[in-house]
Amino acid sequence: MIVWIDGLLVAAGTARIDPRDRGFMLGDGLYETIRVRQGEILRLDRHFARLAAGLELLDFPLAADPAMLERGVRAVLDANRLAEAAVRLTVSRGVSARGMAPDPKAKPTIVISATPYTPPVPVRLIIATGTRRNEHSPTARVKTTSCLDSILARIEAARAGMDDAILLNSAGCVAEATAANIFAVLDGVPVTPPVSDGALPGVMREQIVGRQKVEERTLSAADLDRAEEIFLTSSLGIRPVISLEGRPLPVGPLATRLAGEI
Amino acid sequence: MIVWIDGLLVAAGTARIDPRDRGFMLGDGLYETIRVRQGEILRLDRHFARLAAGLELLDFPLAADPAMLERGVRAVLDANRLAEAAVRLTVSRGVSARGMAPDPKAKPTIVISATPYTPPVPVRLIIATGTRRNEHSPTARVKTTSCLDSILARIEAARAGMDDAILLNSAGCVAEATAANIFAVLDGVPVTPPVSDGALPGVMREQIVGRQKVEERTLSAADLDRAEEIFLTSSLGIRPVISLEGRPLPVGPLATRLAGEI
Repeated sequence: MIVWIDGLLVAAGTARIDPRDRGFMLGDGLYETIRVRQGEILRLDRHFARLAAGLELLDFPLAADPAMLERGVRAVLDANRLAEAAVRLTVSRGVSARGMAPDPKAKPTIVISATPYTPPVPVRLIIATGTRRNEHSPTARVKTTSCLDSILARIEAARAGMDDAILLNSAGCVAEATAANIFAVLDGVPVTPPVSDGALPGVMREQIVGRQKVEERTLSAADLDRAEEIFLTSSLGIRPVISLEGRPLPVGPLATRLAGEI
Repeated sequence: MIVWIDGLLVAAGTARIDPRDRGFMLGDGLYETIRVRQGEILRLDRHFARLAAGLELLDFPLAADPAMLERGVRAVLDANRLAEAAVRLTVSRGVSARGMAPDPKAKPTIVISATPYTPPVPVRLIIATGTRRNEHSPTARVKTTSCLDSILARIEAARAGMDDAILLNSAGCVAEATAANIFAVLDGVPVTPPVSDGALPGVMREQIVGRQKVEERTLSAADLDRAEEIFLTSSLGIRPVISLEGRPLPVGPLATRLAGEI
């Protein structure tokens, strides 16, 4: 695998992040996962817009502009000969002295990598009991590299023999899956939790809400229990939920239709 | 600066973390900050105990045992000729494929670094309004490298011209400062928030609670407003709080006494 770091293409096995990088030390970074289909980089402007929102929140500017980042993505795709790919763009605040306080002179680190695309498969879900998503934090509204709550929920799902987990927020309402938004069809109407409940403003979520009648409102676990159809969305695609807490669910018509259209 | 990575001493400027390391990609790691005084590594057993609790929660074992880690700490202190130091021990889950799901075959990364010790100074505090600490997450009870909420609160403090910030939890009660526990003296009695309110079980906090009458109970912002004395504790020492939200506070007798004893 060849990766792009700060403007240079390097073999991943020799590419170097400094151990003092705040991305490694403190999870002080942001990322985007971007779908490439037949060589086309999908929804790149939306990914850049979310990255920009994250950079504003975390208060560090990149030296790279979107055009340079796009060239980096294309260089990584070419170097790895990938036309169907999941691109990962990761930025961190860069090398700094010990401690929480950012150094305004730190030079951010930018890494672009790509892996072969694997089509989304149906998913069996649990509702995580071990941790909660913090909807009171603005970090819930951008895509950060401080991911441990999602990782813990994913570990809990694996221990239960399932594929993924729903995170509830601090009020006990549905927020999202560990790396995807959730939609539930209730009485024929697709519903997804609002961003204020701790749902990441997902790029695919945004696209679906823009093309399709969707109610954005608080979802309870009880709502999920009676849903006719549930599916997850991420930039990599749409995943029908075929069981929730062991209850079988059908692959529904909306997930099927959207997967064909998007 | 010379750092220890996975058993080897390397100059920090050439030391290498793989860009696919989950510590960098996902904040999937833990750390300890350890005080070294006159060459003595303080409270190392308590730091190892907390690290072990974190490793159990995150579910990845280290190949290194405590004796090996202690040799690593001593090697870093010797290599950097430090007798008064802050040691940072950082572990991550290691290199892995893209995505939240841990790879059980990943080999964890261990980094030990040390910086010259600077004595703690008095601190001016705000109460952060921009984010909250997630007391519902078990990650609040171990010391993880997913630190963005603390970083955002520290940025908010700096913008207000202050030194540090108190994080409230999702219920609006006091949890801790961005990298320290908080104690407030109320009617002559030292009070500190319980771990269940989102206070990290700090090594220094534990030591103070063990040697001194302290009430562990929920603290409100109003409690802080009427406190006779406030101080912060971390493994690096005791910091008297000399203002809270602009209200001046005296350097109190308890902080002064503890700083001399611990």
